[in-house]
Formats: sequence, structure tokens, C-alpha cells
Amino acid sequence: MKNISLRTSGIIIIGNEILSGRTQELNSRYLAQKLLTVGVTVNEVRIIPDVKEKIIECINEIRKKYTFVFTSGGIGPTHDDITSECIASAFGVDLPINIEAKKLLENYYKLQNIKLNNARLRMARIPTGSNLINNPISAAPGFQIENVFVLAGVPNIFKSMVENIIKKLGNQNSIKSKTIKINKAEGEIAEKLSDIASQFQTVSIGSYPFEKGEIKGTRIVITHHDKKIIEKVGILIKKLK
Amino acid sequence: MKNISLRTSGIIIIGNEILSGRTQELNSRYLAQKLLTVGVTVNEVRIIPDVKEKIIECINEIRKKYTFVFTSGGIGPTHDDITSECIASAFGVDLPINIEAKKLLENYYKLQNIKLNNARLRMARIPTGSNLINNPISAAPGFQIENVFVLAGVPNIFKSMVENIIKKLGNQNSIKSKTIKINKAEGEIAEKLSDIASQFQTVSIGSYPFEKGEIKGTRIVITHHDKKIIEKVGILIKKLK
Repeated sequence: MKNISLRTSGIIIIGNEILSGRTQELNSRYLAQKLLTVGVTVNEVRIIPDVKEKIIECINEIRKKYTFVFTSGGIGPTHDDITSECIASAFGVDLPINIEAKKLLENYYKLQNIKLNNARLRMARIPTGSNLINNPISAAPGFQIENVFVLAGVPNIFKSMVENIIKKLGNQNSIKSKTIKINKAEGEIAEKLSDIASQFQTVSIGSYPFEKGEIKGTRIVITHHDKKIIEKVGILIKKLK
Repeated sequence: MKNISLRTSGIIIIGNEILSGRTQELNSRYLAQKLLTVGVTVNEVRIIPDVKEKIIECINEIRKKYTFVFTSGGIGPTHDDITSECIASAFGVDLPINIEAKKLLENYYKLQNIKLNNARLRMARIPTGSNLINNPISAAPGFQIENVFVLAGVPNIFKSMVENIIKKLGNQNSIKSKTIKINKAEGEIAEKLSDIASQFQTVSIGSYPFEKGEIKGTRIVITHHDKKIIEKVGILIKKLK
């Protein structure tokens, strides 16, 4: 995205199941849409494997580049859930059992008559200095450490954690966009569109072809935080129809 | 993924429409599944914006890390299609009109009685030293330069280009996987599963929770290129049922 936001972000999706093509990744799109409503752009998404060194390296690179970082996946109870220990390593802090997180798990499992065994207790290990992120679905919390938000990978739990975060981020310069449909092929309007784009360097103007039966058309998406500028560009683009 | 393949890869998805959440990214999963059938693992996916410096930097980083790199998006006729020029810059080569590509476009547009204007002719600019990748749908070719394959972003065109590539890559050590469904929650089997995983360090053993009505269960995915090893691990994991 062009620099249409003062608040930027990177999303890190952690999990072999995505890289193998077994699971379709859906969390980053959901989060990107939510973030735009509060004026945060997603500037980069990385999908990386469950490999300790790669996770640590990626976290440390991305957290320096953007206002916020969001991770998805790897905070469950099994041997391949290594995100929390990687975050602790990346920040150089300990990973103790968090008393608040442990209580959340105790209450949740007690209600279900399930034993809080050592594997489940792993989910209460939280890097020192973090704030918990509530998980209304299965209790095991996410957490925030500095500008990094660590969220579950299971989509419904991920979404419930995102809801919590979005409220806390507050709304600054929410980003608006307008889509204009033109029943001409991209190649037909490309030159004039390019002229418009070069006049408005700070506006993101995307061009996306579509086909509907015989019609080859183009959707133009104008994105900016200032509605007036979007309208101004929109008037010029409508002339391409 | 663990080092279960001698041939590795990275996928770079280029496009603001993905980062804004406007479009759901589907190409990387399709490609990952196809690559596994010929023994190539996907080790990383990056989704990056239509920004020249970011594309060049990403290409140059990723092409050194893996056997192959695949890019998706940004090779159309409009101002925001900048992938080809970025690839040329990354490799330090020119971006002339390719005679073969131009002919393909001429024939395609002639048949449809459409003018091959300057915008469309941009799609014939191919970095020096590349081989073309056939596009049976809309003629404008992708290309391969060294270990980097540059493909269209539009899903049906992307898929048709992938078909071509997969044939050329040949089959070396195709990667197999076996999924075992266990009707116990992850937290219930996690400790024993961890023991098995530590016995088989070269085998990728993923654990994925599911819920079906009242049942909380776990799918275990065992991945390796050697079927016999998968069977061996499978026997141990079935004992967790």
C-alpha cells in the first residue's frame, strides 16, 4: 500500500499446514479488513513454518519495520506449538507460567471436568511483560508484548481475539476506498488511467480485470483516508467509462 | 516444513488488493499442493505491495534462499503492474520488447479484432535472458529467469501457467503425507505425541484440532518422502486413539 496511513502493520502466519497447502489461510484477510476500519494498513504478510529459528528471525525483523505486528498460530498445547517460546526468545525475556492465564485455564477445564495436564498448562506460559488477550471460546489467551500481538490460528478463536484488539487500537484516519466498475478491458483504459495515477501520487489506484460473459471489464479501486480526494479522483476515472 | 525435500521454494504474492483484504489470496495454496506432488516444498510465502523497492528487495532476498521462487501478480497492462520491471532491476538486466511475446499478443488481439496499443504491448516486455511461460487463456506470457518463475495473478491464468511449470520441474522425491483422525482433544494426547515427534526428528508431524458437535478431536498429519517411515510413525500414533 502507498503511505496512506500513519499506522502500518505486518502479519505473520505460523504453520506448516498452510505452507503444505493442506489448509487455506483466511485469517490475514479478515484481520486486514478490520485493521483498515481503524486506519491501520497491512504492509506485508509472511507465512512461515513451525521452525524456531525462522520464527524468531521473522519476528525480530518485522517488529522493527511496522507500527504493529500480528501473529497467528502456534499457541496450542502440542509439540508443534512453539510460538510463545519463540516470542520470548525474540524479546530476550522469560516464559513463566502466568498466574492469570493459569486461572483462566483452571476455570475453563474445571467447568468441563477435564484435567489441566502439563500439555494444557503449556498454554499458560506467557512471555514476561505481556498483556493477555482474552479468548472467549477456549480460554487459552493470546498476548501482547510491546507492538506484537500473538493470536491463535484457529479461525473462530483468531476472530474473537481480533475483535478485542480492534477496540483497543482506537480509530485514527480510517482508510476509505471506492470501487468504480468500467465495462472496458484493462488494456483499453490503461494509458489514461496511468496519467491519472501519476497526478495523484499519494492515492492508491488499483486496477483489477473481470470477465462477465462476453464483457471484459475493469474494477478501479481508489484508496485514501481523505474522502474528498477519493471523490476528486473518482470523477476523473468515471470519464474513462 | 522440516528438511524433508531437497528442493525448496518461496512464493511471492504481489498486490495491494490482497493486503487490503479486498481479494482472498488463493494462488499460493494451489501452487503448494502442486509442488508437493513433484517433491518441492514451499518454505515461505510473502505477500507484498505494488511498491518497486519492496518487490526488488524481496526477489533478491528470496531467490538466494530457495531452489525456486514463484511470483504471482503485476504482469498486466496497467500502471500498477510493475513486476516485470522489478524483476529486470533485481537481476540487473534490460527489459526489451520480446519478439516472441509480441507475436503471441499480435495473434491473440488480431483474432479478437482488438488493437495492440502501447499499454497492451507493455505485456511483451520480458527481462533479457528469460524463457517464456505459455498463457493459453489471454496470451500475455509469464517468464522464467534463472530460478524465478513470474506468473500472472488472475487465478485461472495462474493455474494454467502452473500446469506448464509442474511438468518441467520433473518429479524428485515427491512428498507424501498421511492424516490420522483421533477422537481426543489435542491437550489429551499432546505429551505422548511430543515423545513420538522427538523420536522422529526428520518427520514433520502436525497436530490440528477439530470440533464436530460434541466431539473434540485432533487430526495428526505425518509428512515425509519415505512411505515406510510414514507407516512406522503412523502405527505409533494410532496407539493414541
